[in-house]
Amino acid sequence: MDKKKPLKIIKIGGNVIDDSQSLASFLTTFSSLKGPKILVHGGGKSATALAHQTGLEVKMIDGRRITDTATLELITMVYAGKINKTIVAQLQALGCNALGFTGADGNTISSEKRAVTTIDYGFVGDVIKVKTSTLELLLKQGVSPVFCAITHDENGQLLNTNADTIASELAIAFAPQFEVELYYCFEKKGVLKDVNDDASVIQTITKATYKQLLSSQVIYAGMLPKLNNCFYALEHKVSKVCIGTPEMLLDAKAIFTTLTIQ
Amino acid sequence: MDKKKPLKIIKIGGNVIDDSQSLASFLTTFSSLKGPKILVHGGGKSATALAHQTGLEVKMIDGRRITDTATLELITMVYAGKINKTIVAQLQALGCNALGFTGADGNTISSEKRAVTTIDYGFVGDVIKVKTSTLELLLKQGVSPVFCAITHDENGQLLNTNADTIASELAIAFAPQFEVELYYCFEKKGVLKDVNDDASVIQTITKATYKQLLSSQVIYAGMLPKLNNCFYALEHKVSKVCIGTPEMLLDAKAIFTTLTIQ
Repeated sequence: MDKKKPLKIIKIGGNVIDDSQSLASFLTTFSSLKGPKILVHGGGKSATALAHQTGLEVKMIDGRRITDTATLELITMVYAGKINKTIVAQLQALGCNALGFTGADGNTISSEKRAVTTIDYGFVGDVIKVKTSTLELLLKQGVSPVFCAITHDENGQLLNTNADTIASELAIAFAPQFEVELYYCFEKKGVLKDVNDDASVIQTITKATYKQLLSSQVIYAGMLPKLNNCFYALEHKVSKVCIGTPEMLLDAKAIFTTLTIQ
Repeated sequence: MDKKKPLKIIKIGGNVIDDSQSLASFLTTFSSLKGPKILVHGGGKSATALAHQTGLEVKMIDGRRITDTATLELITMVYAGKINKTIVAQLQALGCNALGFTGADGNTISSEKRAVTTIDYGFVGDVIKVKTSTLELLLKQGVSPVFCAITHDENGQLLNTNADTIASELAIAFAPQFEVELYYCFEKKGVLKDVNDDASVIQTITKATYKQLLSSQVIYAGMLPKLNNCFYALEHKVSKVCIGTPEMLLDAKAIFTTLTIQ
């Protein structure tokens, strides 16, 4: 029998961040979840909106933001300031004792600046270390850490880091001590067979069927990095990985995608 | 004999925040201080700079910023995002395990929106409660909390709160458990007799001499709220209150102002 305590790590992105009603609804759900829990949020569209407002040029290559100095300052303001503190204050109002984090806070998540190859992504960091001790202490006190998608290199440099990756790396780091459930929440009910048909949710994807789906090019390309993160987590002792709307967290009848090794 | 453990609470503002070299120098000093410590930082001039950049009108009445919705969003980005995370990352690089806070984080500092009288200050909060339990736990682990000047009303509203007041309210809240030393650091060597003469530092101000200074209008008006905060802290069991440059924290020969009851 597994005696490890449960820990829910929930990542929100897409419309769940961009739409204030969807966010409020999600936060009500999150605050009602029993037991230790960690929230990870992406940046949504506000960073791009502020960039336009301040006249900053948004540079994207293959759908990825290029993070120059001005962009890093901007996302630090939007992710760690505006979005993170709005979420923390709203959770407090719902009786959930939230505490906001970047990876620099408490030296919780260290990363290294991505090497320049054909593309220079700028101040983008790939996670190299997660330190769980301070977080565990806080979880024991009923505090819920809320992470934004920023880490640091331990030498004073903040780095833009993919929120899906932060969620899976946190899940993996806690897996030896906790029975970790990792949930990726967005506006779709799960991984779709047909990107234009919201009812075409694939309810279970195993490592074997994932390979088939890949080779038959069924899965929407934007979903691939997320699925790679999911299987990476499962291969590193994370107990459960699911993708869907926030409904999957509470509603026993909700339809969503569960990833499994076998 | 007093057996309470020491706790240093240090507030930085003015040029110590605005000038990156002064800030870096201060952070080196802060990181070298032994024992439990908390940093509180003001906002400096960056909020005003970003306001100009985004075309936001800065409204001031009697030197106080009027915090409308757009201004609150802006200072949340600048104080809790840009400044707080830059400081946290720099402290981590110096080996100081910093963790950033607004009053909403961990529900540490609650305030109430200032009542509208002849002036509507907008989303400005006056501190009504400080909760030390989570902070004490972190201090015990060697973590140094870093507070920006934002609190919350426990109903989801973030509120702009004077950083000097946050520092003195934190000091008072910790005074029953700790021997608290409260330091206000800025670019001047202390309270000056002559605002145009940096050498005219008043090295000791007692409650009695403060009243004399007030009646003879010797002290620069902008310094009065800070001094009121200082005496308020001393009257609530804070052990030591000092005003000066960061040098007072390390240099035994430094000249600065010490406030005392008698």
